[in-house]
Amino acid sequence: MYKPLLTDLFELTMLAGYQQEAMIEKPAAFELFFRELPYQGGYAVFAGLQTALDYLAGLAFTAADVQYLASLGLFDDAFLAFLKEFRFSGRVTAPREGEIVFAGEPLLTVEGTLAETQFVETVLLNIINFQTLVATKAARLAHAAGRSQVIEFGLRRAQGPDGAMSVARAAAIGGVRSTSNVLAGCVFDLPVKGTHAHSWVMAFPDELSAFRAYAECFPDHCVLLVDTYDTLSSGLPNSLTVARELRAAGHELVGVRLDSGDLAYLSRQARRMFDDAGFPEVKIVASNELDEFVINSIRSEGGLIDVYGVGTRLATCAGPGGGALGGVYKLVEFAGKPRMKMTSDPVKSTLPGCKRWLRTKDGNGRFVIDVLDLDHGRGIPFAPGEVAYDPKHPQRSKTVAPECQVVDCRSVVMEDGQAVQPAPSLPAMADYCAAQLQCLPEGCLRLINPHVYKVGISKQLLDLREKLQQEHSS
Amino acid sequence: MYKPLLTDLFELTMLAGYQQEAMIEKPAAFELFFRELPYQGGYAVFAGLQTALDYLAGLAFTAADVQYLASLGLFDDAFLAFLKEFRFSGRVTAPREGEIVFAGEPLLTVEGTLAETQFVETVLLNIINFQTLVATKAARLAHAAGRSQVIEFGLRRAQGPDGAMSVARAAAIGGVRSTSNVLAGCVFDLPVKGTHAHSWVMAFPDELSAFRAYAECFPDHCVLLVDTYDTLSSGLPNSLTVARELRAAGHELVGVRLDSGDLAYLSRQARRMFDDAGFPEVKIVASNELDEFVINSIRSEGGLIDVYGVGTRLATCAGPGGGALGGVYKLVEFAGKPRMKMTSDPVKSTLPGCKRWLRTKDGNGRFVIDVLDLDHGRGIPFAPGEVAYDPKHPQRSKTVAPECQVVDCRSVVMEDGQAVQPAPSLPAMADYCAAQLQCLPEGCLRLINPHVYKVGISKQLLDLREKLQQEHSS
Repeated sequence: MYKPLLTDLFELTMLAGYQQEAMIEKPAAFELFFRELPYQGGYAVFAGLQTALDYLAGLAFTAADVQYLASLGLFDDAFLAFLKEFRFSGRVTAPREGEIVFAGEPLLTVEGTLAETQFVETVLLNIINFQTLVATKAARLAHAAGRSQVIEFGLRRAQGPDGAMSVARAAAIGGVRSTSNVLAGCVFDLPVKGTHAHSWVMAFPDELSAFRAYAECFPDHCVLLVDTYDTLSSGLPNSLTVARELRAAGHELVGVRLDSGDLAYLSRQARRMFDDAGFPEVKIVASNELDEFVINSIRSEGGLIDVYGVGTRLATCAGPGGGALGGVYKLVEFAGKPRMKMTSDPVKSTLPGCKRWLRTKDGNGRFVIDVLDLDHGRGIPFAPGEVAYDPKHPQRSKTVAPECQVVDCRSVVMEDGQAVQPAPSLPAMADYCAAQLQCLPEGCLRLINPHVYKVGISKQLLDLREKLQQEHSS
Repeated sequence: MYKPLLTDLFELTMLAGYQQEAMIEKPAAFELFFRELPYQGGYAVFAGLQTALDYLAGLAFTAADVQYLASLGLFDDAFLAFLKEFRFSGRVTAPREGEIVFAGEPLLTVEGTLAETQFVETVLLNIINFQTLVATKAARLAHAAGRSQVIEFGLRRAQGPDGAMSVARAAAIGGVRSTSNVLAGCVFDLPVKGTHAHSWVMAFPDELSAFRAYAECFPDHCVLLVDTYDTLSSGLPNSLTVARELRAAGHELVGVRLDSGDLAYLSRQARRMFDDAGFPEVKIVASNELDEFVINSIRSEGGLIDVYGVGTRLATCAGPGGGALGGVYKLVEFAGKPRMKMTSDPVKSTLPGCKRWLRTKDGNGRFVIDVLDLDHGRGIPFAPGEVAYDPKHPQRSKTVAPECQVVDCRSVVMEDGQAVQPAPSLPAMADYCAAQLQCLPEGCLRLINPHVYKVGISKQLLDLREKLQQEHSS
């Protein structure tokens, strides 16, 4: 799926340069992280790891690939020969998919030769940026929907076929566990859902005939779209007629779908109509440019919707700060020494060295603060009772209570280019995500102006950063 | 690339229903159109046709696909047998890729059996929505950049690998004719561009060594990224040193890339430094969250940038009303009769019948007004001198001057499921697009509050709509 030519040209020119400089086999480590939480929200949900590991394990240039690169006139024969044998044989450290993550935390650490760790930058960013963004959106939607279900309807508005597949996979991790996309259902073993379009109704002489025909074809899976002509005066009464006819024949109408108008109002009217007529089990499905904010407002106005179908705004990750996760991939060690970027824009400076990403939890398992420390084996690891410093304002610090539990959020997931264990199922990832969201401090789940969860750095990481900054400015 | 299972489930349930109702072979026609111009802009650029035709020509279910569908428990054997033989053998009418399009205009008309025309809805929308959105964004970027070049840098922020491929293809049609994406360069025969990342600089003991090494490896293709430590005090002076060394060795530095800070200011400083030192040919490349608005403001502040690298905001089609084109696919004829959707939301009502999409032009070839008419052969075609009506407010009308030229914006591009002619090259599409943009009324190209170009409907289309509305309400 991910072809080796799918990369930014500069990855290849840099590799060619590193070969000429005899640096290509030297050990390096990169970290992938983002600088700002998406959607101006209080958290993000990590996703895309298994896709990334599949890419790394399968990376190999074909003869045709190398021939194309030769045609660019940029690369010498020695480099083209190197590419023919090129594989990824490094180590990857990562959290579980579905883990809750915050700005600045190393989602992936990739260790290996400079060649293999540099080359994979573009595709790792492509995969992790987008799936993490979608999983986060899905978690926000699922939270806004409360006990109601959310279905992913985004195929027609996604960025190409693979965009739609990534959407369905990552949405499932974040809590939107079913999709209208049949291929995603097949490939990822997800429940697929759907009913009919307006064109079904328009192809019949009238709405009632169309509803009756659909009920006859799918007597046990019948959800009727009620807004082709008029929801209140036509669609809902006709659907009630069909509900009665289905019951008389020994079946039950599953639901109706509202796709325009005031969904809060129409859902209350529909609920009352079906309840009064003895059909309390008929589900109210709603679609039409929904997102977490619209769902929230529908619920706060007493809307009675059982299933939300979310398409465009999930598939395109719309919303404040949406559309893209600005994940970056930065060199943190080279030839055994820590590295950092010290650009004139302080926001774009990086933290040096391979890091451990620790999470401290209270006695109830609730998250207290995350701490970035230098990687185990390169110093004494951070422990409860010690001080964590705000990386932007180190004069601000917080002592982690001695009774806190400290967990390492990551483990080695790939060694020598091979995944160390099989991937969990998507439902297992989604369950893990849902459980972790319960452990966030209150306020982090709020859609607007959420509580800002703290990520500190350890004393030894702070000291290393100051030492490198001094070396550079002297 | 586009597998047949890549579809919304409801396309399949509807087909199964149409089979049971003995409607599946009846003739139908759908039109694909959007209701609002993207980015609150003055025009859109049509793209994605060739991708769509490739999909239609290759559509066929495998035995494994049918087996999966059988496992859902929704479909009977007769329908599964039908799917095994299912192909697209209909007709498609479309404009050229690169054509300028406006809201309400039928981008595609798909005619054939109800089965084949309905089934392809989801993927046609997926392809045309996204590529048209990207091509439009690219045209806006190219216009904002004036004589400067724009390069597509979006792979790392696109929606999966195919999202990135669609971006590169459609961007080229809209006027962003080169990319950093090597696979896109290979598949679409586009120029690929790129230099090095911050990690290159960070892997060397100091910036000057890194620049010298890169210049040594690529003496004739050397663009140096100058903001790893500090653009003005470090990156630019070091790049000038390398420019002099390259010249002494018989080569010339191609350019420098600015990636942070005040790009208008830094570009003027860089330009002056290189000009004063006798290097007027060194190009100033800029990147960092650019879009058409940022480019416009850089130019209005006297920024001197030769090449803009645009990534995230092109790949994700960011901006007002961005992220997704709300294209829809609506039944307009069935069993020989025109159809329309009359929902309670008037914005979502449709125009009935297969349509011709005409463009009237003045003596200079400048667009005057577009007119939607009933398709040729179903009435007397619209001609200059006649009146075009505003579809939303028919009391407003405009007589098309008799001296206007009228052109049909579309032609039959697929017949019996086969493309009628080979696709033009991407540069030919891009040239066509650029020429058409020159013919728009002044003001349509404005980024904010553009001139609203008019799309009218003919008398016979207006009459048909009123007739069907009266029939429905009586």
